[in-house]
Amino acid sequence: MQTTTPLQALRDQLVALELDGIIIPRADAHQSEDCAPHDDKLKWLTGFSGSAGMALVLRDSALIFVDGRYQVQVRSEVDMHEFSVRHLHNEPLEQYLAQSLPAGSRIGFEPLLMVNSQYQALSTTGCTLVTLEQDPFNAIWADRPAPPRGAIREMPVTISGESSTDKRTRIARLVAQKGADYLAITQPDNIAWLLNIRGSDIAMNPVAQSFALLASDGTLEWFVDPQKCAGLPAGLMSTLTLSSDDSFLPRCRQLAQGKQFLLDSNFAPVALRFAVEQSGGTVLWDADPITFIKAHKNEVELAGYRESHQQDGAAWVNFLAWLSREVPARAAAGNPLTELEAQQKQLAFRQQQPGFIEQSFSTISAFGSNAAMCHYHSSEKTNKAITRDNFYLNDSGGQYQNGTTDATRTLSFGPLSQQQRQHYTAVLKCFLSLFMTQFPAGTMGHQLDALARRPLWDLGLDFDHGVGHGVGHQLLIHEQPQRLAKKYNPWPLSPGNIMTIEPGYYLADQYGMRIENQVEVVESQPGFCRFVSLTLIPVSLQQVEHNQLTEQEQRWLNEYHQRVRETLLPLVSSESRAWLLEATAPLNVQVH
Amino acid sequence: MQTTTPLQALRDQLVALELDGIIIPRADAHQSEDCAPHDDKLKWLTGFSGSAGMALVLRDSALIFVDGRYQVQVRSEVDMHEFSVRHLHNEPLEQYLAQSLPAGSRIGFEPLLMVNSQYQALSTTGCTLVTLEQDPFNAIWADRPAPPRGAIREMPVTISGESSTDKRTRIARLVAQKGADYLAITQPDNIAWLLNIRGSDIAMNPVAQSFALLASDGTLEWFVDPQKCAGLPAGLMSTLTLSSDDSFLPRCRQLAQGKQFLLDSNFAPVALRFAVEQSGGTVLWDADPITFIKAHKNEVELAGYRESHQQDGAAWVNFLAWLSREVPARAAAGNPLTELEAQQKQLAFRQQQPGFIEQSFSTISAFGSNAAMCHYHSSEKTNKAITRDNFYLNDSGGQYQNGTTDATRTLSFGPLSQQQRQHYTAVLKCFLSLFMTQFPAGTMGHQLDALARRPLWDLGLDFDHGVGHGVGHQLLIHEQPQRLAKKYNPWPLSPGNIMTIEPGYYLADQYGMRIENQVEVVESQPGFCRFVSLTLIPVSLQQVEHNQLTEQEQRWLNEYHQRVRETLLPLVSSESRAWLLEATAPLNVQVH
Repeated sequence: MQTTTPLQALRDQLVALELDGIIIPRADAHQSEDCAPHDDKLKWLTGFSGSAGMALVLRDSALIFVDGRYQVQVRSEVDMHEFSVRHLHNEPLEQYLAQSLPAGSRIGFEPLLMVNSQYQALSTTGCTLVTLEQDPFNAIWADRPAPPRGAIREMPVTISGESSTDKRTRIARLVAQKGADYLAITQPDNIAWLLNIRGSDIAMNPVAQSFALLASDGTLEWFVDPQKCAGLPAGLMSTLTLSSDDSFLPRCRQLAQGKQFLLDSNFAPVALRFAVEQSGGTVLWDADPITFIKAHKNEVELAGYRESHQQDGAAWVNFLAWLSREVPARAAAGNPLTELEAQQKQLAFRQQQPGFIEQSFSTISAFGSNAAMCHYHSSEKTNKAITRDNFYLNDSGGQYQNGTTDATRTLSFGPLSQQQRQHYTAVLKCFLSLFMTQFPAGTMGHQLDALARRPLWDLGLDFDHGVGHGVGHQLLIHEQPQRLAKKYNPWPLSPGNIMTIEPGYYLADQYGMRIENQVEVVESQPGFCRFVSLTLIPVSLQQVEHNQLTEQEQRWLNEYHQRVRETLLPLVSSESRAWLLEATAPLNVQVH
Repeated sequence: MQTTTPLQALRDQLVALELDGIIIPRADAHQSEDCAPHDDKLKWLTGFSGSAGMALVLRDSALIFVDGRYQVQVRSEVDMHEFSVRHLHNEPLEQYLAQSLPAGSRIGFEPLLMVNSQYQALSTTGCTLVTLEQDPFNAIWADRPAPPRGAIREMPVTISGESSTDKRTRIARLVAQKGADYLAITQPDNIAWLLNIRGSDIAMNPVAQSFALLASDGTLEWFVDPQKCAGLPAGLMSTLTLSSDDSFLPRCRQLAQGKQFLLDSNFAPVALRFAVEQSGGTVLWDADPITFIKAHKNEVELAGYRESHQQDGAAWVNFLAWLSREVPARAAAGNPLTELEAQQKQLAFRQQQPGFIEQSFSTISAFGSNAAMCHYHSSEKTNKAITRDNFYLNDSGGQYQNGTTDATRTLSFGPLSQQQRQHYTAVLKCFLSLFMTQFPAGTMGHQLDALARRPLWDLGLDFDHGVGHGVGHQLLIHEQPQRLAKKYNPWPLSPGNIMTIEPGYYLADQYGMRIENQVEVVESQPGFCRFVSLTLIPVSLQQVEHNQLTEQEQRWLNEYHQRVRETLLPLVSSESRAWLLEATAPLNVQVH
């Protein structure tokens, strides 16, 4: 008996639904960066495991769209006899629909998985977009995992710093000022912030899949699987109306007549727009105001970040001290340490910290050429030995009770080439650059990006990722809306924002390096801001060309290392102290 | 007999036209930065002489909208009993129409003076926009100046570097590729480039008011007052169809049925959209492709820029040498030199240069507190003496046969305070910063802006204008599309672009300073670019804190001054040579 492949089964659905094609985005209804297995249709269909992409399945052909990060990976994971690859941004789906399909082609899509701005872009292609009312994968995905049912817990106000009711009052006032009747909240981290809850549907993402409707008078309806709420206190539940998540769209239809709904065009599923508009309501397109307000952390949240970074710093020092002993010892024993062993040990050190909950993202533990791939994760197949002749890169972080951490260090355990030292020194100078920059409040991330690239540009080099991203408060590792990147970002930086600073350099098939600290934006003088490090981890200076550092850069490093030493010395294990003292020893400042 | 004021006369028109209000932009049909007197309705109506703004005249009130530069000036020029002032960008017209007028208010506008993007913004305000088919000022502006009739001359291909027919072929191919039938060209500098002509309708703006239609097959119709073309050679005229400028819209209507017109939403008058759409045509909204292509100068144009900057540099040196003698001599004689005398003498030096045609913009010759106003121009009323206790700022340029120049120098003729020296040094470091930066080809101006502000930011200071603008080739002093500024600019920089670099600092009521060079973008290594100075004028180092300059900055200055000295020494007057040698003497490089 011939087994039907997922692709064949989906094509049978095309015929049954009288479609010429169907769009399968790598998305859930919340536009989560990490998908629950239940929602990862793209992986089931194609094998592609990256965090962004989409497929277009036609009757006789199929395409997969992925961005620059995944052009290599997609070819190793997906059957290239079945799918052809296109660039998600440079050769987008709408271009293909407009140029390669006959006008009027019937293309199905699930309106819960597509946001309005995507829908708008696809609407002008000449194809007929056909709304699928039923999930076409229900009929064909036999062993589909169940939707996640992770328990939801309350985050106490001692950690969040502001009660949920106060937050609702604040946001509802903004909704009313904009003239809207309802704010429809579809992003789980915004709901987590508003309700002071944390979820566990997806590992390392402490949010719960759910929807919420905040009325302009402050009343709140929460649409969530009630089984996930069993552990929530009655005090919280009494302040809102609870309904199941699948009643969200029906409820919007019920309320819509004559009402205005504030929807975020880049995050709200277009299904929501259809529900509102087809029931006599109107849409006010605007960013969800929670996104910007949530990024401005209050004093209690900031204190939590700072404390969790002390714990994470201690775990890092214990790990790095262990690594400095283990790498040579294991090499001498002819049984070198591997990437996977290192990351397992690092997790164990983090687990010793009292506030640690789980990792905040999949660790990147990469030696040599593996580190040249920005989004590498070790597997048994790729696992490399950590030896003395190249860089070892570790990018990892933790979810702590009171904060989220994210840091990268690039290390070496033996002498490196002059080119390696020069590249590392340039990356270090890029990293230091933003710490030594004061900038006007209101400056946007794209305005600062070049400052963290210029030392690499001087060498004719660059790196193909952003300089930094927001980090949630015991929330998502990539938090909207601010970014430090080349790409235009309209959101001004101001005191209380939490960002990363993480320049890097990658030489394909040879090595990769990145230095990353998490920072808070603070007021430096009226009208001006600067970045202050939250991360407290020694920066490796072994592979630095000391004479290429300016006096100011050397002094910054000495002050930083003094702070790291004084803060962490009481917190690290006794066997790590000598290493910490050596790793934070002041440079003998040279004036060139 | 009571004289009727312009405002009263316009209100009579409101009644006659059954309007509640009328919009009077400071604009002509070509969105020229400088308006011909014939077109400056706003000045005639209100007295406001700035280069940007608009008025809204209602039956019982009137408002004038100006940007941050003009908030002071508008109050001195306009009758504040008649007009209230609003901020052009922060309190825009559309906000006022939406929030302060009853829905359905009938607001008149001239569709030749409003671009599509403005019209779109005003269309959602709830007011009824009433298209005025006749110019309402014809009936009320008795002594209105005639439309300009400046003669048009051909620019030889020896200066433009590419024949008009080749340019038309190139652009027509792009129009065809985009699927359009016609490109409607409404910007006079784009027409000047395409036809290899230069005009003289408005002083210092070597363009001709006209319109053009380029068909996708390369044929060209030119809509221009034929009297202006008397001096054009038959060879050029035989390659195009000539029609009067007022037949432009009728011709578009005649051609429109079933055709697609490429229009630039930010420059094309909405009248053009109406003409096309009401006659059965469609509009493809896109930037005029000439704008981007014109900014990439060819080798002949680049050679012209370089040569014209040698002439302008010689004129500057003769002027600065004269100034260095004249300021102390006149001060000693008790009859100090004035701003107006200085700028008159500077013009005389420029007029000695063989290729000089006219100034490229109104000179800013400003001493002390006058220089704190970025857009100051001396008048008999404001004219200050140039003395030894403050900065003198000169921002000026020339139109030469083969290029356009623009430069600023800030000078002092006596000892200044430590604060003044510190501020000047920071501005100099901002200026130097971009010259010492290599950046990837394709970088956009807003990405580099911070590099030219950081030394000021370090002091908690900033300046409220862009870092640089494009400069036309014997064309407009502010050329689209690239900008170096905080504001997002989507146009990548690439070799052949001509920009200015002009950071400054302004302390209200005390002093202002700016250092400006014109530069070309060159390839520095594959994939990377840098700025190379076209401007050859010594940078004043008298008021610099030498010990705050890095070794790299000192070396750059020495190399620059060596180039200035060697290039200009043969070109300046004999009495200027000693000054040039002194002004370009190398710094004794200090390593701190």
